[in-house]
Amino acid sequence: MPDAVLPHARPVPLDKAYRLINHGPTVLVSASHGDQVNAMAAAWACALDFSPPKVTVVLDKSTRTRELVEASGVFVLSLPTVAQASLTVALGTDSAKQVHDKLARLGVQTVPAPGSGAPLVPGCVAWLVCRVVPEPHNQQAYDLFIGEVTAAWADERVFRDGRWHFDQAPDALRTLHHVAGGQFFAIGQAVSGTPTE
Amino acid sequence: MPDAVLPHARPVPLDKAYRLINHGPTVLVSASHGDQVNAMAAAWACALDFSPPKVTVVLDKSTRTRELVEASGVFVLSLPTVAQASLTVALGTDSAKQVHDKLARLGVQTVPAPGSGAPLVPGCVAWLVCRVVPEPHNQQAYDLFIGEVTAAWADERVFRDGRWHFDQAPDALRTLHHVAGGQFFAIGQAVSGTPTE
Repeated sequence: MPDAVLPHARPVPLDKAYRLINHGPTVLVSASHGDQVNAMAAAWACALDFSPPKVTVVLDKSTRTRELVEASGVFVLSLPTVAQASLTVALGTDSAKQVHDKLARLGVQTVPAPGSGAPLVPGCVAWLVCRVVPEPHNQQAYDLFIGEVTAAWADERVFRDGRWHFDQAPDALRTLHHVAGGQFFAIGQAVSGTPTE
Repeated sequence: MPDAVLPHARPVPLDKAYRLINHGPTVLVSASHGDQVNAMAAAWACALDFSPPKVTVVLDKSTRTRELVEASGVFVLSLPTVAQASLTVALGTDSAKQVHDKLARLGVQTVPAPGSGAPLVPGCVAWLVCRVVPEPHNQQAYDLFIGEVTAAWADERVFRDGRWHFDQAPDALRTLHHVAGGQFFAIGQAVSGTPTE
């Protein structure tokens, strides 16, 4: 990982990758094909399997990002932070089909992932590179894409030893959880459940 | 809605139902068939569509709840709270296949939803009754079920006017977001994003 650009990113073992999105964060979905790259916000991403780790994500047919995902067979889920709430709204509002230099206008310069070159969004706290598992019926009927996670990284300030540690880092690094219309909640306090019997 | 059992439950318009799970909470999945009823915890539930509202949920083949979902064609997503963290762990740990009186032992007495009779879990802050949209390939290959939301309710203390209002209610009513091994985060502070340009 290029230290100067993502200085806190550390690899996450694939068998722990599901934990990056298990708590239901809003994500940025990015993809590239040829010299094109784009990213969009998505609240509808979810873990699907542990090993090999798989995820689902809903990508509307109107989006440029979906076209790049279909062309390349690869997408990245990046987890934005409280500090990136406005950027996340902008990435979810503008379309690269109308605003052709969308990423440049928003000041986003993606970073190629080691190995695949898939575009990671800087400033996020986790990144999952996913290979599309082709399921044409789901993609057409439900806009639902399945991806197998092939590489993952997380920001060591908030994710270490296979767990999130938001309580020990600045609140600006907490993940975002979208409700509607640009209104989010940050992830909150740790809560431990113990079996009742 | 039986006021004595779920005194704070109010109907949620179907076009706002996606907002109940948009922020990525862990859910309880419940189902009934004949005189059998069961519930389990699931972190892998997600919105899939706005209108008609649809959701996805992953149900392992080993679970009794899945058998009831397949037999009845209906499931309920109930959103547990911080106050129910230990119950949620227990519902996700025990299996009704080994512990035949699982719900009774955990002190859970479900409430039949008005109209469908689908089993709602008391103490939660939202409930979505879902009709299975049969997709045998997804169910077999990925344990992935699609449901269309046919009715929804939420606790008026935390969900009003189509929005969550966790900041104005006791923290015990916040939703749970599972990481792993009985460790959760509560949903946290409200964050507003404004477009950056």
